This record gives sequence, structure tokens and C-alpha cells, in this order.
Amino acid sequence: MNTPPPSERATVRRLPQRASYEEAAIHAILDAGLMAHVGLAVEGQPYVIPMVYGRLGGNLYLHGASVSRIARQLAQGIPVCFTVTLLDGLVMARSAFHHSMNYRSVVALGTAALVTDEAEKTRALEVITDHVLRGRWAEVRPPNAQEVKATSVLRLPLEEASAKVRAGPPKDDEEDLSLDCWAGVVPLRLVALPPEDAPELREGIRPPGSLLEYRRP
Amino acid sequence: MNTPPPSERATVRRLPQRASYEEAAIHAILDAGLMAHVGLAVEGQPYVIPMVYGRLGGNLYLHGASVSRIARQLAQGIPVCFTVTLLDGLVMARSAFHHSMNYRSVVALGTAALVTDEAEKTRALEVITDHVLRGRWAEVRPPNAQEVKATSVLRLPLEEASAKVRAGPPKDDEEDLSLDCWAGVVPLRLVALPPEDAPELREGIRPPGSLLEYRRP
Repeated sequence: MNTPPPSERATVRRLPQRASYEEAAIHAILDAGLMAHVGLAVEGQPYVIPMVYGRLGGNLYLHGASVSRIARQLAQGIPVCFTVTLLDGLVMARSAFHHSMNYRSVVALGTAALVTDEAEKTRALEVITDHVLRGRWAEVRPPNAQEVKATSVLRLPLEEASAKVRAGPPKDDEEDLSLDCWAGVVPLRLVALPPEDAPELREGIRPPGSLLEYRRP
Repeated sequence: MNTPPPSERATVRRLPQRASYEEAAIHAILDAGLMAHVGLAVEGQPYVIPMVYGRLGGNLYLHGASVSRIARQLAQGIPVCFTVTLLDGLVMARSAFHHSMNYRSVVALGTAALVTDEAEKTRALEVITDHVLRGRWAEVRPPNAQEVKATSVLRLPLEEASAKVRAGPPKDDEEDLSLDCWAGVVPLRLVALPPEDAPELREGIRPPGSLLEYRRP
């Protein structure tokens, strides 16, 4: 039996057969993504900002410069929408109408809270750093007191989230199958090219092994 | 001289040296992107939805099923935020604090309007289809009257938009340059794998040449 939607407003209405509310499905997409688009509204005007993030159990963590508008707005405890979309392919049908995308996405609604506990804040920064590259935190200089202070960390509990996935070939109308037109899927992948050393890199330092075959989970 | 910001609320405040309000810079990022994250607020709750789009001159076009919540909300003329983000690389510094991403993004604010003129609507559907794959519209069956009716098209004029770009190596603190830690950039690219034929594809039909070396501009 499927996990039911957590709330009315977090229920996927359009093409509900593509939706899932399973924790494992939601976590897998969040862990594969690199960047979220975070939405908030200020006096009725929505703003959508790309942000990196990390997940620890049932919490998402975001960070930003403490002085930034978005960190200050989010820290006030306003409603937020956190969306991660992974593009998996172009779906090319025989009709313009049935063109689509293969994708995996998560939409999480809620209210972010400013993390004030120092231990949780440091752990969250570790989680965000290691979300981008596992093990990176242990390789680099950790933030000093001034850097921690200059950074706001926000916690968004995954309480109202949905996943939506489209996969597979185009679905054409029966009468279009005979058209003289190619149909299929063009798979898309976000790939990493070979690492480029920083210009002032000390001689003899090689990129960590984790970067030589970088891929998202 | 730089183009000034179009409005107070469309002005990039955080790291303004990364911002541009030049039409050419904004158009180039929009033309390179495949998917936007569109934000709208309903009773104070923001929603951020991934959508494909197209650009024709100074207008963005979006489409959705006429019955969908987002199309119906947008058609009411509510404020919208349209964000496109292209991830170009992981910026790996010697300190956790200076880690970053290389990216190109556009944020456009405004009010979308439902396109009711049939000629503009058809042209917009062509623009959206060809945004994903140039020339695709001419290869496929165009939408019939029922399909056009089932689709809502929305026009968002690019009147309050900004671009923001980060490129180049990490910027470490002087005193971290001597650390025994690799630093540099891992370039990221969205690449297309070889096209996969639909299961019921008629024999002898090959993918169009435009798909065999698919890349974004």
C-alpha cells in the first residue's frame, strides 16, 4: 500500500500516478540532487532562489550569508517551498502535444527555522559540504568562529513533501504511431569533467580520489 | 556602462558584482536553460514548480494543462518569479567556508498573462517545442484543436529580470593557500546520451541529426 499524502496542500493533483509520498523515494531524489530552488513570498511577491542544501534524517539544511535577504527572511519563520528537480531526459513524441521530460522532483512545503545551537549548526554545515562531495569536510579547514557567525543555517523538517517521477518512452496516440517521425528519449546526465586545479595550488597536491570519478548517487 | 537594474525588487543585493541586467546576458542564459523553476504564492504559501519554457524576443512563454492548478493560478494574473539556473561547476576551496558553485542564473519577476489569441498561442507552443530541440516543431504532428484547448499558454514579459553568474576558481584566504588540501573547480555539464528509440518505432526511422549531437547553446 502506498504512503498517503501528508497534507491536502502537499498532494500532487496533476498526473497523480507519477507521485509518491514514500520517505525512501523522497530521500533518494534529495540525495541525488545538488541544488534546490527555494521559494518564499514577500508581500505576495514570490522569489525563487537556487541554494545548495544537505539532508540529515528527516531534516533539510540550507545556509546563506547571515546578511543576505533570503537568510533573514527565512529566519523569520515564513512559509517556504523547497523544490529539487533532476532532469533525466527529453521525451520526444510524434505529436507536439505528447512531448515531455523525464524527471525526478521533490517538493517540500514548510517553515524553516534558524539553527541557533552551535553543535547542530556545525553539523549542518558538515552535512551541506558533504552533500556536494562526500568526505570533503574532513579534507578542508573547518569554519572559524567568525565564518560560523557570518553564516545562517536553516532547518526545514521534511513533513509535507512529495516526489514526482516521469520515466520511460513517449506515450503517443495510437493513430500517430504510423507517422514518419522519430520518437524516443534522449537521456540527459549531469556529468563532471576532470577537475581543474586552482591557479595557486601548491605543487604536488592531487585532487582527492572522490573527485576523479565524481557522480551523484 | 552597465545596464541599470530595472527595479528595486529586481536588484541583486548579495554579491552584486556577479549581477548583470544586460538583455544579451539574460537572453543567453534563458536560451541555454531547459527548465525553469516557477514560483507563485497562494494565500502566502509559495509553490515552486519545474516547467519547460520558451523565449520569443522579450517574452517568456510557459504552458501547462488547462486543468492544472498552476496554469489556473497563473492565468489569474498573480505575481510570479521565474528562475533558471545552470550549474557549471563545483568550486572546491581549502576552507569549508569558501566552497561555492559556478553557475549562471536568471530571475525574472512579473505577472504572467493567459494567451488567448490563437495565432500567438500556436506560435508560443512552437517556440516552447523548439526551445527544447530546435526544428522539432516542423518534424512532428502539430496540436489539433482539442489539444490546443487542453493547453494553457502564459506570457511573461521580461521586464524585471536579472542575471547572476559565478565563474572561475575558488577564492581562498591568503593564509589558507599553504594548506595541504586540493583546491579547484570540478566543471559540470548536462550532456545527452545516445537517443533511445520508442518501443513501437516504425522500422527504418532514424533520429534527426539534431539529436545525435544534442547540446544546449
